[in-house]
Amino acid sequence: MSTEQKDMVDAILRQSAFPIGSTAQQQRQMLRAALSAQPLPTDLTVTPGTLGGIPTAEITIAGIEPHHVVLYFHGGVYVIGDAFLAADLAAQVGRRVQAKVISVDYRLAPEHPYPAAVDDAIAAYEGLLQSGVEASDVVFAGESAGGGLAVATLINARDRGLPLPAAAFVMSPMTDLTLSGASMETRREADPLFTRELLRERINDYTAGQDAALPLMSPIFADLAGLPPLIIQAGTNELLLDDAVRLAGQAAAADVEVTLEITAGVPHVFQGYSAILDEGAAALDRAGRFLSAHLADAEHEAARAGQF
Amino acid sequence: MSTEQKDMVDAILRQSAFPIGSTAQQQRQMLRAALSAQPLPTDLTVTPGTLGGIPTAEITIAGIEPHHVVLYFHGGVYVIGDAFLAADLAAQVGRRVQAKVISVDYRLAPEHPYPAAVDDAIAAYEGLLQSGVEASDVVFAGESAGGGLAVATLINARDRGLPLPAAAFVMSPMTDLTLSGASMETRREADPLFTRELLRERINDYTAGQDAALPLMSPIFADLAGLPPLIIQAGTNELLLDDAVRLAGQAAAADVEVTLEITAGVPHVFQGYSAILDEGAAALDRAGRFLSAHLADAEHEAARAGQF
Repeated sequence: MSTEQKDMVDAILRQSAFPIGSTAQQQRQMLRAALSAQPLPTDLTVTPGTLGGIPTAEITIAGIEPHHVVLYFHGGVYVIGDAFLAADLAAQVGRRVQAKVISVDYRLAPEHPYPAAVDDAIAAYEGLLQSGVEASDVVFAGESAGGGLAVATLINARDRGLPLPAAAFVMSPMTDLTLSGASMETRREADPLFTRELLRERINDYTAGQDAALPLMSPIFADLAGLPPLIIQAGTNELLLDDAVRLAGQAAAADVEVTLEITAGVPHVFQGYSAILDEGAAALDRAGRFLSAHLADAEHEAARAGQF
Repeated sequence: MSTEQKDMVDAILRQSAFPIGSTAQQQRQMLRAALSAQPLPTDLTVTPGTLGGIPTAEITIAGIEPHHVVLYFHGGVYVIGDAFLAADLAAQVGRRVQAKVISVDYRLAPEHPYPAAVDDAIAAYEGLLQSGVEASDVVFAGESAGGGLAVATLINARDRGLPLPAAAFVMSPMTDLTLSGASMETRREADPLFTRELLRERINDYTAGQDAALPLMSPIFADLAGLPPLIIQAGTNELLLDDAVRLAGQAAAADVEVTLEITAGVPHVFQGYSAILDEGAAALDRAGRFLSAHLADAEHEAARAGQF
């Protein structure tokens, strides 16, 4: 765990932050260019699929016999990014829980504002269950807006009476589209990537005039009762720090099993730099242990329930 | 992880809760009777000692070669309990980090109100450092009020310029003697052990008319910047749930490495029932991994610093 590594990641990100005033189209291109510059690990196979009518990227990892499914939701403020660009990070989760990963290519704003992403996410999960996969063999994972979408999809699934996955793992989740967290101010200098204005513009694309505090947009305003165990990770160098902290508080208040892990001095979705940042790999390892333990519990419960 | 186990612990605790209106003396006797009824594990040796002039219980574990020291702070709202009664739980931490455990027998209210406990705790830590133990080989641990005292002692040590321990582990810490947490109301039915009135009476013994929001009494009102990594655990069936959640939030806001683990459906200091509650043992195992990882980091840093 070295200061040098943290400083390097910070310097790289400060150079690659989106310029103020850039459009959604420009930001999409910049993210694609940045992520495509890194070749995918050679042990990954990523193929287009569909689930409940929603396009997906199916990710398999050579040498891993998949016993579980990670349903993955990528980040990008509901406007940029896609299921394929997230393959490397999504696979980092899959590697740690012996899983195949299905990354959901939900529709993006401004072309498709709320609730398009939420509708696609729940349709994909329903499609996964209809394909014969047991909920107890599934975990959700997601980064940034995808972390918020993962939690929203748990709420949505609970409200529809669907069986819930064994657990969920969210990295730097965006859970408050009203941007009311204190860290929006207190982390302004520390965050190498985001400004509140940049987030506000993209969020406006998604909300399209609707109330940003709706529970499936901003799950910190939702009742989280009945949700499966959650592990929430964030860095202290991010505007969205309080989105993670408050989500944990809401989960605890609703009697949900929850772990919050805050890593000091690292940025938004620092797990994405695990190749050059020890803290990223360590965080993914801990999340993998959490998910594996709850997959084992859920399997045990399902077997017990099946006996009666 | 079974509902049956949780129900049994809840039933036992509802029977053993202190009667309303009982005095500090009566509560001391009841706690002693309850804890003394369980024989100590035969592999523990507990002997009286002193550290910086403060009495202690020194706990060694047969078969464990101690590489580290756990400085332990017992619970009891600063009024009941003692260093020896906490030996079993304190040793559960020591077992998991290859450590000798020193449980501090700080002075209690009402005979010795604030700041007696805080003064004794820092004196014991200074005594430990003066005895030649490196701070990088030490972790703090504590339950309930002892968890609050552990954090207060970190703050106190930081402010005095002392080297800080590698990490700290607090179980259901009492961190807000003003009792302002929302869980004081929302968890009233769920908590099998405490009422706000019972806490208020014992806290009054300790504050003795002083402001309960003083930072070394109520560390959620302190600046936590510069503290070492913290792991905070609590159950959802406790009035003090929000003391844990808010401590984590304050730590994150101050750039401190922090893990918050909330276990659903378990009571105050549920780790104390690890013999009959799987969640208790699992929580201690996770805390042990956290502390061991940070002890290894601190040792590495200390070795690096020593080279230059």
